[in-house]
Amino acid sequence: MSTRLPLAENPAGAPLRALAKRLADSNIQQLLADDPERAQRYSAEGAGLTLDYAKHWLDDESLSALLDLARAAGLESARGELLSGAPLNNTEARPALHTLLRATSAPAGCEDKFAEVEAVRQQMRQLVEALHNGERVSFAGKTFTDVVNIGIGGSDLGPRLVTDALQPWQGKIRAHYVANIDPADLEQTLASLDPSTTLLLICSKSFRTEETRVNGLSARQWLLDGGATPENVGDNCLAITTNLEAAAQFGIPAENCLPLWDWVGGRFSVWSAIGLSTAIAIGWDAFQDFLGGARAMDAHFAETPLAGNLPVLMSLLEVWYTNFHNAGNHVVLPYSHQLGLLPAFMQQLTMESNGKRVDCAGQALAENSAPVLWGESGTRGQHSFHQHLHQGTWLCPVDFILPLTADTSLQDQQHRLVAHCLAQSRALMIGRDLEQSLASLRERGVEEDRAMELAPHLVMSGNRPSSVLTMDKLTPETLGALLALYEHRTFCSGVLWGLNSFDQWGVELGKDIGAQVLAMMKGEGEAASDPATDRLLARWRAAEGG
Amino acid sequence: MSTRLPLAENPAGAPLRALAKRLADSNIQQLLADDPERAQRYSAEGAGLTLDYAKHWLDDESLSALLDLARAAGLESARGELLSGAPLNNTEARPALHTLLRATSAPAGCEDKFAEVEAVRQQMRQLVEALHNGERVSFAGKTFTDVVNIGIGGSDLGPRLVTDALQPWQGKIRAHYVANIDPADLEQTLASLDPSTTLLLICSKSFRTEETRVNGLSARQWLLDGGATPENVGDNCLAITTNLEAAAQFGIPAENCLPLWDWVGGRFSVWSAIGLSTAIAIGWDAFQDFLGGARAMDAHFAETPLAGNLPVLMSLLEVWYTNFHNAGNHVVLPYSHQLGLLPAFMQQLTMESNGKRVDCAGQALAENSAPVLWGESGTRGQHSFHQHLHQGTWLCPVDFILPLTADTSLQDQQHRLVAHCLAQSRALMIGRDLEQSLASLRERGVEEDRAMELAPHLVMSGNRPSSVLTMDKLTPETLGALLALYEHRTFCSGVLWGLNSFDQWGVELGKDIGAQVLAMMKGEGEAASDPATDRLLARWRAAEGG
Repeated sequence: MSTRLPLAENPAGAPLRALAKRLADSNIQQLLADDPERAQRYSAEGAGLTLDYAKHWLDDESLSALLDLARAAGLESARGELLSGAPLNNTEARPALHTLLRATSAPAGCEDKFAEVEAVRQQMRQLVEALHNGERVSFAGKTFTDVVNIGIGGSDLGPRLVTDALQPWQGKIRAHYVANIDPADLEQTLASLDPSTTLLLICSKSFRTEETRVNGLSARQWLLDGGATPENVGDNCLAITTNLEAAAQFGIPAENCLPLWDWVGGRFSVWSAIGLSTAIAIGWDAFQDFLGGARAMDAHFAETPLAGNLPVLMSLLEVWYTNFHNAGNHVVLPYSHQLGLLPAFMQQLTMESNGKRVDCAGQALAENSAPVLWGESGTRGQHSFHQHLHQGTWLCPVDFILPLTADTSLQDQQHRLVAHCLAQSRALMIGRDLEQSLASLRERGVEEDRAMELAPHLVMSGNRPSSVLTMDKLTPETLGALLALYEHRTFCSGVLWGLNSFDQWGVELGKDIGAQVLAMMKGEGEAASDPATDRLLARWRAAEGG
Repeated sequence: MSTRLPLAENPAGAPLRALAKRLADSNIQQLLADDPERAQRYSAEGAGLTLDYAKHWLDDESLSALLDLARAAGLESARGELLSGAPLNNTEARPALHTLLRATSAPAGCEDKFAEVEAVRQQMRQLVEALHNGERVSFAGKTFTDVVNIGIGGSDLGPRLVTDALQPWQGKIRAHYVANIDPADLEQTLASLDPSTTLLLICSKSFRTEETRVNGLSARQWLLDGGATPENVGDNCLAITTNLEAAAQFGIPAENCLPLWDWVGGRFSVWSAIGLSTAIAIGWDAFQDFLGGARAMDAHFAETPLAGNLPVLMSLLEVWYTNFHNAGNHVVLPYSHQLGLLPAFMQQLTMESNGKRVDCAGQALAENSAPVLWGESGTRGQHSFHQHLHQGTWLCPVDFILPLTADTSLQDQQHRLVAHCLAQSRALMIGRDLEQSLASLRERGVEEDRAMELAPHLVMSGNRPSSVLTMDKLTPETLGALLALYEHRTFCSGVLWGLNSFDQWGVELGKDIGAQVLAMMKGEGEAASDPATDRLLARWRAAEGG
């Protein structure tokens, strides 16, 4: 793998620091007025998605300097390394080959891996078909009506999102998701289900993820309590794992296991057998179309010059605001009820990948890495935190995500949804000055003294940056392209920051301490603690006794 | 109302600026080691909740200086004004009297308002009982099995959260929530319901909220399509509104309307008739207990000296990190599956209330106001963004919220949940240095060269601040206290920043522009636009035509 250049050492960063000041003081409306072609030129398309990025603190000079930054960071060669299966994940000495999961042919040297991918695809397809046509039945000899996906993090957020987003493709088998170690999650989910018609999918690469293992065992007991026997309980269980031995101990025979590979990170795994619950819910054809959409985005990312490349542009905007304008957060607002889980998915994708403090070589970063990503579906957020977006003091760059049309008999509502999305992006830009605020109050008949008093409260500074990412309609294809777009954006930002987006060493310690605290709660061992934790443990003991 | 002092003009701010530097360089573990009483002293209790705040960049001097800041900001008199019904919401010339909604007696001068509150409580109780005992039936003469709450923002998040959180109290009538203008929200909700046994609650103070009005009309049509007539459709509809005329036009007679008052902000309204869907779902007694928990927190807030006052302490921590350590975000992590919606609720509460750019007098703030609030239920977040909390570069102060026990047959899972919460807070504090990282790798048998290479990636800087807020169990009472705690924290922070927490002028413009854009989409009028919006409109037209 080529060496990464951290942002602080990127020679192309210096001109950007100077430009940043000028652009923050520029006025987006003025930039649009000065250049009749701006709205057209500041847009890019690929794989059924269109990015309009004219409403940003950008001009040709800063955009060109940002592209220079990308080139100087070696983004083009890094892209090639990613897609060809180079061991980019240097701390774990592996490639990050999630693109292979949706490919129709293998890059040179990846033929063996691709053959395995194709074999699992066949296995998935056969499973989905056998479940749908009733060939595969439960321990009680019944057709399955429900699947419960037991997994957490990457083994949960991806399939949960996609199943939810593609609800119009929902077939006769419904998917449910259990992730939390909190028993309420499992208990509430199983309460409405029938063990004799419910299939469990245990999703854990290692089969050792605590939440998944423990929830899996509790769910297995629910099957046994519901009439299964230790001999036939495996009929209602599938495992998606690399650890066949642990799965066998659980009672899942090898023929009920679907493999994963160490070159697929959890947060990039929805395209693999981790997506099985989704494939069962929406059917094999729709799942294939979902992969196809991602593949189209992969091709766009691979082949499009940087200046028109969606993931590259969106990553440059992320770095521009994060590092040159000190924005510590990024907002994702899907104007689509079905994409309500998208911000949570993106949160994992970007913050687990790029929430890092060292570069690939282990040197402490001198520049900030991933900002906090958060959001909500529109129009719900408008009645919640948009006050803060319009009049708050913190810089919050926004991605609006908008399917332009939808199949619904309530077209008026769909049109209103579109109108609001466009209006919010425009309102952030134009704001409202004191004079306009006064005029608005006078129009409402507010008397002059009161209007003068109130007007400053109505003022919105405007000039707040946002992108609008549109697609004709939310379909398996456009959804696949959308997720792949943010995957590649995440990778690009990691390259620009000079870090490894594919490991997550920061989550280890908490797990270790979790086991220590649990031991202390059980009165086992003599784990190290601290006075604050001791006090909390004492509170727990008192509550348990009370 | 007494004048508010913006933070930038608060004379008690100067010593804090000096202290902030020292405290950011301090080590929390060392502070705990140096003072055997710290863990005990840095805790406070009230209304069944306990805040442990020893793991912060705080010492006695800075804590004392923060309390001075609160006194200099006039927090004590502001608290009195809030609770006595003074017109604190100065831009709208109203009090903010949500505490009256859970009171058992009225402060002086609020007797008339309180009489109205009590009358509505009686109306709610009778409704809940009549629905439960089958006295009140649908247009088809059937007992109701489901209610659909149609509302958005404050008319949605509060009751949705409380119904979800108190799922163990769920009775035989189930509550559903529809908020988004996106027709998918309503369509997916109604798909599984029977019009002849479904009651609609139309929740909009003005009865003019676009989403609620439009969804309400679509839902009304669904009732008509399901057998209701224009004459009896009102049997299946209730309105919570101040606008009886508009409700009557909709087909809801006055006797089916429950009033709201202009002195209740939407985000503070779950205690009012806006909570009706929850009261129906969990029953009247549990709803009363929920109000009782909030009332207990009101008493704690009113009567406890600042130094032991939960909302005050949490607000001082918010201002400490926001303004003296430049943290632009605040994380809320409920370790409870049932509190999964809490971050979204808190997001509205804090960001709509305090996402402001001017003080009460309309002067631009020279200091930052509300940070971004975000979060996720534990342990789900651990497998998503905790990497960023532990190893990211941005300061993210955390509130862990933990019910210590739960009624479940899966006690082992509940214990694990508690262990993880305590472990995450401890891990954020202790971190892992290079030597410990090396030791950890050697223990796993990693060879020395590789261990040296990897160790820097395992390093966690630690010293990251968090609070742990515990309760013995999640009940209607503790949930009421929890929400009231954050309400008062929000108010206190508003006072410290010198702003009005109870208006939301920043959401007006977007609504106006939304109407303009919709008119353009319909080809009506000649609304002002801009080249970027025009281009997006052209995209929409093309997609509609395609």
